[in-house]
Amino acid sequence: MDFLQALNWRYATKRMNGEAVPQEKVDRIVEAARLSASSMGLQPYSIIVVENPELREKIKSVAFNQPQITESSHLLIFAAWTEINESHIQDYIDNIIETRGVPAETLNDFKNTMLRVTDRAQDVNHQWAARQAYIAFGTAIAAAAVEKVDATPMEGFNSDELDALLGLKEKGLKSVTLLPLGYRNEEADFLANAAKVRRASDKLVISLN
Amino acid sequence: MDFLQALNWRYATKRMNGEAVPQEKVDRIVEAARLSASSMGLQPYSIIVVENPELREKIKSVAFNQPQITESSHLLIFAAWTEINESHIQDYIDNIIETRGVPAETLNDFKNTMLRVTDRAQDVNHQWAARQAYIAFGTAIAAAAVEKVDATPMEGFNSDELDALLGLKEKGLKSVTLLPLGYRNEEADFLANAAKVRRASDKLVISLN
Repeated sequence: MDFLQALNWRYATKRMNGEAVPQEKVDRIVEAARLSASSMGLQPYSIIVVENPELREKIKSVAFNQPQITESSHLLIFAAWTEINESHIQDYIDNIIETRGVPAETLNDFKNTMLRVTDRAQDVNHQWAARQAYIAFGTAIAAAAVEKVDATPMEGFNSDELDALLGLKEKGLKSVTLLPLGYRNEEADFLANAAKVRRASDKLVISLN
Repeated sequence: MDFLQALNWRYATKRMNGEAVPQEKVDRIVEAARLSASSMGLQPYSIIVVENPELREKIKSVAFNQPQITESSHLLIFAAWTEINESHIQDYIDNIIETRGVPAETLNDFKNTMLRVTDRAQDVNHQWAARQAYIAFGTAIAAAAVEKVDATPMEGFNSDELDALLGLKEKGLKSVTLLPLGYRNEEADFLANAAKVRRASDKLVISLN
């Protein structure tokens, strides 16, 4: 697998053909997102995987009826924490202690640094959490391409309505992006064979030597 | 190359050994970022590549003196547009027309949709642009891992001071993240051989079947 080839192959698929993505591919895409970098390693978001067709039908109605929501076989929802509290930090510290087998006191400085986050306005924390979710989102988009699975990165949906539908607010989550996974319908999708449009390197990239 | 293996191999490198990353690897990492998805395809950011050691020394001083800034060989700076104006939209539409060889009038609806963005508060647009830059950032982090190049995703720096140092404000840009590229110094980096800490799947992932 050539990574750049995979990224060139992918595009924001507008129509899918309903074919199911094998579970092991979905699992690898989600695992790639799980392994993503995040600030201080906190991973302040959840990834919701929706397979249920009736539920995806309802989600479609709060996402401008975009057909990929139901023409895909799995829908990933990236939902960022609405606030960051001490128990989030403690869970993370406990995870480090358990995973690395280190004494709790070696993490005191790190924990105190992290706890400062809880003093910020919670909207600032949510915006920060959302940015971390976008790193995982970017990784999942790339991972789908590596798996030759089509995907449609989406911001176009009513997040308040989606959060209400799935009870996300009660879970301390706010949906930020969607990623339906499936296979392109080349006949129905006018973009399937369109050339990829990207800003030229000499416009996007600034080199300081 | 197994993508998950690469993501497992990578970590936020705290100390690098000064060895130079070959230019072709840097180019492929930047190209991966260039190919990244972005909302409506706009790519509202720049990627600044800093090789110059004296300049990286100055950047280090506005980034809490983190040693990777100078122990790396290349520093990527992701900088999001501070505002989105009509000429940004027109440049993008022109790029689509040229890349796909389509008549301008076929893009009228799309252009009008995009122009609505220019009616929003510019801070909203900058925050949105920053999120798009995070997708490219996530892609570049993964691409570095694929190239077996170490990297350190960083939010910890004074963006106002960095923007002043590089004259980014005048270019309509605000720095949002840094990504030094280099090679890990296993002896000096206490994290080099530490187990990766990630939230367990059953905590991070919610399945709705």
